[in-house]
Amino acid sequence: MKKIEHIGIAVNDIKASNALFEKLLGHPPYKQEEVVSEGVKTSFFMNGPNKIELLEATDTNSPIAKFLEKKGEGIHHIAFDVADIAQEIVRLQSEGFVLLNDIPKKGADNKLVVFLHPKSTNGVLIELCQEIK
Amino acid sequence: MKKIEHIGIAVNDIKASNALFEKLLGHPPYKQEEVVSEGVKTSFFMNGPNKIELLEATDTNSPIAKFLEKKGEGIHHIAFDVADIAQEIVRLQSEGFVLLNDIPKKGADNKLVVFLHPKSTNGVLIELCQEIK
Repeated sequence: MKKIEHIGIAVNDIKASNALFEKLLGHPPYKQEEVVSEGVKTSFFMNGPNKIELLEATDTNSPIAKFLEKKGEGIHHIAFDVADIAQEIVRLQSEGFVLLNDIPKKGADNKLVVFLHPKSTNGVLIELCQEIK
Repeated sequence: MKKIEHIGIAVNDIKASNALFEKLLGHPPYKQEEVVSEGVKTSFFMNGPNKIELLEATDTNSPIAKFLEKKGEGIHHIAFDVADIAQEIVRLQSEGFVLLNDIPKKGADNKLVVFLHPKSTNGVLIELCQEIK
């Protein structure tokens, strides 16, 4: 758990939200990327050592579409940067945390990712991510 | 907007959540502090250049009590570290953002803080904070 890699924010209209977050943070996204397997379009903004990820659903069955339907726009997850995702999975499972996927999958922004179940983390959806070298 | 200063997480039982986040992050909170004016008890954990703040309501009328009643436990706000809070207030108001308080107030962890209205920020409660020197 080296730092907050990014905060993921679910939005209805990523184009409008890109403009909004550009005003807030003072600069445009450095990357826009569609992750077809997750049914999302994403934008990434740098903010010092951290990033802000905006997520718009491209598929009504995607987790982001379901989140937006249930809760509306807002913070969706916190992602922590980890040095060794396999080692963190073992450590966290031994501490009683429940993983949504226990085999890391390819996420946006060139990362291997796993998610912890919010029921084991005070209602917070937590992602672990490790840069793919 | 230098970096994410902290993520605020609303919890029902800060003692239980301190134990949970100690397991998650690998170390205990560096500070526990009650902010009577906001009706909250807080704990702060370091995470590299960022912090995680846990918030438990101490008053049924506090914003955290209302959040927990409406949404349950989960991420409550993102706080950005700013160099000059007065200058950021002027800049953000000129960009059309709405502030919940436009005069900075004393928050936890020795900070001057203002909050942006979530209606102007995609449903995300955003705090700006500047260290009190």
